Amino acid sequence: MVNAAIDNQSPEHVVIIGGGFGGLYAAQALGRASVQVTLIDKRNFHLFQPLLYQVATGGLSPGDIASPLRAVLKRQKNTQVLMGEVIDINPQDRLIKLQDGNTIEYDTLIVATGVSHHYFGNDQWAEKAPGLKTIEDALEMRRRILSAFEVAEKEADSDQRRAWLTFVIVGGGPTGVELAGALAELAHSTLKQDFRHIDTAETKIILLEGMDRVLPPYPPQLSAEAQAELEHLGVQVQTKTLVTNIDEDQVTIKSGDRTEQITAKTILWAAGMKASPIGEVMAKVTEATCDRAGRVIVNPDLTVPGHTNIFVIGDLANFPHQYDDGKPLPGVAPVAMQEGQYVANLIQKRLKGETLPQFHYTDYGSLAVIGRNAAVVNLGFVKFSGFLAWLTWIFVHIFFLIEFDNKIIVMVQWAWGYFTRNRGTRLITNPEE
Amino acid sequence: MVNAAIDNQSPEHVVIIGGGFGGLYAAQALGRASVQVTLIDKRNFHLFQPLLYQVATGGLSPGDIASPLRAVLKRQKNTQVLMGEVIDINPQDRLIKLQDGNTIEYDTLIVATGVSHHYFGNDQWAEKAPGLKTIEDALEMRRRILSAFEVAEKEADSDQRRAWLTFVIVGGGPTGVELAGALAELAHSTLKQDFRHIDTAETKIILLEGMDRVLPPYPPQLSAEAQAELEHLGVQVQTKTLVTNIDEDQVTIKSGDRTEQITAKTILWAAGMKASPIGEVMAKVTEATCDRAGRVIVNPDLTVPGHTNIFVIGDLANFPHQYDDGKPLPGVAPVAMQEGQYVANLIQKRLKGETLPQFHYTDYGSLAVIGRNAAVVNLGFVKFSGFLAWLTWIFVHIFFLIEFDNKIIVMVQWAWGYFTRNRGTRLITNPEE
Repeated sequence: MVNAAIDNQSPEHVVIIGGGFGGLYAAQALGRASVQVTLIDKRNFHLFQPLLYQVATGGLSPGDIASPLRAVLKRQKNTQVLMGEVIDINPQDRLIKLQDGNTIEYDTLIVATGVSHHYFGNDQWAEKAPGLKTIEDALEMRRRILSAFEVAEKEADSDQRRAWLTFVIVGGGPTGVELAGALAELAHSTLKQDFRHIDTAETKIILLEGMDRVLPPYPPQLSAEAQAELEHLGVQVQTKTLVTNIDEDQVTIKSGDRTEQITAKTILWAAGMKASPIGEVMAKVTEATCDRAGRVIVNPDLTVPGHTNIFVIGDLANFPHQYDDGKPLPGVAPVAMQEGQYVANLIQKRLKGETLPQFHYTDYGSLAVIGRNAAVVNLGFVKFSGFLAWLTWIFVHIFFLIEFDNKIIVMVQWAWGYFTRNRGTRLITNPEE
Repeated sequence: MVNAAIDNQSPEHVVIIGGGFGGLYAAQALGRASVQVTLIDKRNFHLFQPLLYQVATGGLSPGDIASPLRAVLKRQKNTQVLMGEVIDINPQDRLIKLQDGNTIEYDTLIVATGVSHHYFGNDQWAEKAPGLKTIEDALEMRRRILSAFEVAEKEADSDQRRAWLTFVIVGGGPTGVELAGALAELAHSTLKQDFRHIDTAETKIILLEGMDRVLPPYPPQLSAEAQAELEHLGVQVQTKTLVTNIDEDQVTIKSGDRTEQITAKTILWAAGMKASPIGEVMAKVTEATCDRAGRVIVNPDLTVPGHTNIFVIGDLANFPHQYDDGKPLPGVAPVAMQEGQYVANLIQKRLKGETLPQFHYTDYGSLAVIGRNAAVVNLGFVKFSGFLAWLTWIFVHIFFLIEFDNKIIVMVQWAWGYFTRNRGTRLITNPEE
C-alpha cells in the first residue's frame, strides 16, 4: 500500500483520480483545507485540452499546453501527486487499486477521469481516422497532416495528388471547427511558398456534421456565422451528413437519401464521446446508473447514489438536475472547474458539520475560434463574432493556462504567429516504421 | 523519377543529402547561385543538435530547437526540399535512389548525412542505455529520467529506491557533461519540492569517461574547471573508467585493474560515434576509403577520391589535411557549417571556370555548458569559465538557432528558467505499453 501519510495532524484523506480541469481544480481548492490530498493521474501533467488542436496543426508544442502536476501543486504541502492508473475501486474497504499493484486507502474519493472519443461501434475506423484527446493523438494528427503534403509533392499522378490534398474532418463541434479553421490557414497561408510541385491553395478541407448546423450547442445565429467564416477560409462545410463507412482512402457519407464517396488520404475524427473505463467500474461497484455514453448519473451534490463519500465530476459526470428537461450539463472545462471547486468546498463544510445547497453551474458563456481574426462568442446576454471575438478567445485561453510560463510562451508564439502566419512547430516526429 | 526542374534557365542540378548544419548551410549559400538545388532529408526539419540535451531534461520543447526545412528555404526560389531516405547512389548515371522508389538525377552531389552514436560492438546495450541523436531519442531520455523519480516516489524498498535515484552517464564529451549538469540541476533544484516520500537531493549522478579527463578535446585547464563545476553541482565524475558491461540495472566498470558494479535504473549513453549508412554506400560505389568509424576520407577540396562532382561534408567527412599529424577535423557544428559554405562557393567558382584553394577550417573556439551560471569557453587566445562563459554560451546558441521565432522562444524560456529554476516541459510522453 502506498503511504498516504504526509501530515499526521489531518487524518481525513481525500483521493482524487484524474488531473484534468475537474481534478486539478478540486485539488487546488483543497490546498488550505485540513485534509490530506492525493491526486492520481496516468500522466505526469495537466493537459490544456482546448488548445490540443493547435499542437495537431503545428502552432504550439506539447510543452506549451501541458503543466507537470507536481510543479502546479508543489507548494501545497498537504497534497501528494502519484502517477499511476486506477483499475479498481472497493467502496466497502475504501480502497483503490492501481495497475502497478499498489493500493491506496481513502476517506473521500473524487473521480474525474473524463471521456475519450469513440466511433459509434465502428472501432475499426480508429486507425484510419484518429481522434484528438491526448498529446500523442495530436502528434499523430500533425504527422499525418504534414506527411500528406510531403507525399503529394513527390506524387506524379494527379488523382493521387488530389487524394493527398483532401482532408476530411468528421464532427462539427468546437474541436472539428477549430481544427478545420487551423488546417485551412496552414494550407492556404502558412505553407503557400513551401512547395515547388503542388499548390497548397488547392487543398480541399471538408467538415462533416450530422446535425443541421456546426456548433450545435450554440445559438443558431453563431452557428451560421461560424459556417460563413469557415467557408471564407475555404472550408467546405456539409451539415446533415452522416459518415456510414471509412475505407482505405474513402469516406462514405449519407445526406438524406443521397450516398456519396469522398476520396481522401487524411481523415480526422472530432465526433463521439465515451466515458473512461472507470465509469464502468463505478457502475459495477456502486449503485450508480450510467447514461448511454457511460457517464455516471450523479446526485444533486455530485455524489454517487448510495455513497456520500464518492464524487464524480467533470466530463465523466452526467448532472441532470439543473435544467427542467433533464439535459445534462455540457462536457466543457468550466463545468469541470466549478464542479471541482464545489466538491472541495462541500468536503470542507462537512468536516465542520455544515452542508451546502446542491451544485449549480454558472454559465459565463461559450466560445470557439475559427482561425486568424475570427471566433464566435456567446455570453448569453450578448453574442458576437469576428475580430473582437477572436481577441476574447485568445485572452480567455491564455488566462486559463495553468502555469505562468505557459502563458508567456503561448502569448509570444501567438503574437509572432499573428504577424508572420508562421506555425513553427510543424515537425513530423515518431515517423511510421 | 522526381521532377527536379524548378527553373529551366539553370540546368546545373546540385543535390544535397542531409539537412543538418553542413547540408543546410550549403543549400543557403547556393540560394543566389545559378543552379537548381534539391535538399533531401529523412526528416522535415533541421535539428539544432547542440541543445538536444535540453529537450532530454525538460528545459525545452522539440519545436524550440527544430525548424521546418521548407520554412527555412521557402524564399530560395531555386531550391526544393524533398522528404525521403536515400538508400543508394549511382555515380555512373549520376542518380540517387530513395527508399520510396523514386530516383533523382544530379550533376553535383553533396553528402551530409552525419553520424549516429554506437556501442563499440555491444548493440545489445542500446535498449538499456539510449543515446541522444534525434528528437525521439531526447523524448525517450526525458521519459526515462522523469519516470525514475515517479517510480522512486512509490517504492517502499530503500535499495530499489536508491537504484531508481541513481543515474549513470557514459561519456564525458560535451553531450555527457551538459547532460550531467542539467540532470544535477533538475534533481537538486527544480524537483526539490515536487515529491513527498523521496528527497531528490539524494539523487546520485555518475559521469563516466574513459580518458583521463572530461572534455578531452579541450585544454586540460578547462577540463579541470569543468570537472570542478560538475562536482560542485553534485555530479560524481569518474575518469579513466571504461564500461565493460551493461545488464539489467547494473553497469560494470573497469578503472585500471579494479572492476566495480554500479546499480542504477537509468543509464544514458553519450559516447561512441558511427557514420550514417550512406558512408558504407559511398565506400562501395566510389573509390573512397572510410576510417574506423565509417567516415569518408575526403580530398583537400572535400570531394570524394575519383569523383570531382561528389562532396562529403560535416560529421560524415574525415578531413585529415589541416593538421600535420593527420588528425581529422572534429565533428562539431562549426566545421560542418564552414564545409557547407566552402563547397557551395567552390561549385559556383567552377561554373565560372575558376578554382579555390583547399578547404581550411577557421577555429573560433569551443564551448560547453555545465549548468546554470557555469560553462567553459576556449577561444584559443583566451580560455575562461564561470558566469561569463555561461553568458557567452547562451548568446552563441541563441544566435545560431536557425529561425527567428526559435530565438525568441528559447530566450524567453531561458530567461524564465533562470529566475525560477523551472523546467516547464518535463512531460512524460509516449509511455511504454
